[in-house]
Amino acid sequence: MIPTIAWKGGAVCMLDQTKLPTEVVYVDCLDYKTVAKGIKELWIRGAPAIGIAAAMGVALAAQDIKAKDFETFYKRLIPACEHLAAQRPTAVNLFWAIERMKTFALAHKGEKIARLKEMLIEEAERVLTEDIAVNRAIGEYGAQFIRDGDTILTHCNAGSLATGGYGTATAPMRVAIEQGKRIKVFADETRPVLQGARLTAWELMQDGIDVTLITDNMAGYFMKKGEIDLAIVGTDRTVRNGDVANKIGTYSVAVLCKEHGIPFYVAAPTSTIDLGMASGDLIPIEERGSHEVTEVFGKVCIAPGGVKVANPAFDVTPARYITSIITEKGAFHPRDIRKLGYKKVDLGAVRMKV
Amino acid sequence: MIPTIAWKGGAVCMLDQTKLPTEVVYVDCLDYKTVAKGIKELWIRGAPAIGIAAAMGVALAAQDIKAKDFETFYKRLIPACEHLAAQRPTAVNLFWAIERMKTFALAHKGEKIARLKEMLIEEAERVLTEDIAVNRAIGEYGAQFIRDGDTILTHCNAGSLATGGYGTATAPMRVAIEQGKRIKVFADETRPVLQGARLTAWELMQDGIDVTLITDNMAGYFMKKGEIDLAIVGTDRTVRNGDVANKIGTYSVAVLCKEHGIPFYVAAPTSTIDLGMASGDLIPIEERGSHEVTEVFGKVCIAPGGVKVANPAFDVTPARYITSIITEKGAFHPRDIRKLGYKKVDLGAVRMKV
Repeated sequence: MIPTIAWKGGAVCMLDQTKLPTEVVYVDCLDYKTVAKGIKELWIRGAPAIGIAAAMGVALAAQDIKAKDFETFYKRLIPACEHLAAQRPTAVNLFWAIERMKTFALAHKGEKIARLKEMLIEEAERVLTEDIAVNRAIGEYGAQFIRDGDTILTHCNAGSLATGGYGTATAPMRVAIEQGKRIKVFADETRPVLQGARLTAWELMQDGIDVTLITDNMAGYFMKKGEIDLAIVGTDRTVRNGDVANKIGTYSVAVLCKEHGIPFYVAAPTSTIDLGMASGDLIPIEERGSHEVTEVFGKVCIAPGGVKVANPAFDVTPARYITSIITEKGAFHPRDIRKLGYKKVDLGAVRMKV
Repeated sequence: MIPTIAWKGGAVCMLDQTKLPTEVVYVDCLDYKTVAKGIKELWIRGAPAIGIAAAMGVALAAQDIKAKDFETFYKRLIPACEHLAAQRPTAVNLFWAIERMKTFALAHKGEKIARLKEMLIEEAERVLTEDIAVNRAIGEYGAQFIRDGDTILTHCNAGSLATGGYGTATAPMRVAIEQGKRIKVFADETRPVLQGARLTAWELMQDGIDVTLITDNMAGYFMKKGEIDLAIVGTDRTVRNGDVANKIGTYSVAVLCKEHGIPFYVAAPTSTIDLGMASGDLIPIEERGSHEVTEVFGKVCIAPGGVKVANPAFDVTPARYITSIITEKGAFHPRDIRKLGYKKVDLGAVRMKV
């Protein structure tokens, strides 16, 4: 599996995903400002992956601080935290990870500064390993729904590249393969930003998983032909009634699955669950720039100049279309998500990964 | 309305659609070989439009023939007909139009050659005017389904650019506007070849029609929001049980319409109706090259090298999803299409427009 991000000596090493799939370039970020740049410029994307990058950025900033006492140390850490937090205003895991690192530092203020710096690296690495553990657990719970010989449709990228590794929607596929099941994957290209074509197809190919790339409008055709056995997608937010928000086009996949009697699964780390919101109807949907639709990679214009464009980045799939929501704590019927316990998430606005 | 093709003095003038939407270039074809090149290289596409081009190409070839008697004239016309017919092996209207011109010539073998040459121009122009008349009739029958204030979804390009003018799926929209109805259109971009983005959005903008471009995977989102009132699409082949084959993604639009209780109309000139085929399940589907999916305009690579790709160019929408099939002879429930009378179409393989 291709590593998305890792702590390497005194640097944060991250895959520059903007260069995929034509180039595989790892960047060694030697200071936190370069980590921040990587977050801002989408070298790394996907909520879990951004969180890990932010935690490692804080740890990296800590290494360069010259201070003899905790107060001075912490005071000098804050501007780095604020700089990192300013890079992606909508990425919930960014803020969460930075807060976790600050809280960790405060909880260990009695340590010698040199030791605290080491401990912050360990904590950042824990954010990464915990993320992978969550994904593995999702994989274990999800693999039960995959039979030998199944073909699985997925949409967008909820794979290794969006996480510390293993992915969320891809985790059940990986575990199924480890269990000896032979599977095939169909990846929707996922217009307009093409995460399926650029990222999902690429990462599955790296792992030797049998993947076929299709345009988004072909999914129904293959379902009708009986070539799709189940669909697994990720989620950016899962709310109390079991509705999920995910990349635009997910809802259409769910409707097509219903029409063809195909199970539709959502892989959802509990960190995406927002029990403070009653219904998916309340989730505001980010409208992004028209250039994503009218130009490809800013290089080729594919539509008339000045054309009116709609570009909602996400859609909401109502709970009734969802067979099961697979978390690291088990697979749940959407109506049972609320049993995971109340968690108040105050994000101000919706926070979703691109 | 932008003219697709016209007879202009001694030339066939056609819009080079490969340059759309960034450039509007008309090519004056001064000989039939240039017309043939235009057909082959997709300057002109869409079954009806290709037929018109072929008829005009035959008329143009006739002008350059030096012959004193009909036998010599006709003998010299045949190679031009064969050359034109060889350009697009799957375009049914190409063969139909060429046969029509040959039959017309034979039926008027008693005319003086100079007069026959004029009559062949008139016949080619008749192919064009008849096509527009068919489209206008489709528009009249279709406009009854459009109410003032409606928003109409369409897929691919079954507009003026695919025909002699007026379009098939766009005809009801144009008539509705002439009737004073205020309408909006949502155009699916129609991956992989982007006919919706490049052609439909462009031609509707030329006519001042309110059009919004969306990616194919957004249609469900807007239906769920209640923003789509009806869908109208074209068809490449309509068979006896009322099933229709059309551009890939049409079936998904139909399923989404059903799920949301939205009427789904198919605009079908009777020339597309193949009563010799019992069911859409029998229609072979053309599989096209993977480069259409992995590259945009041959300029930008959007997927990993060597990725496995599926690229069915068409899909079949079963009759049960279709509210009405709108022809130039009236709007029919799909099960009543057979009442239009038996017509045996022997195409060898499916013939569909790109």
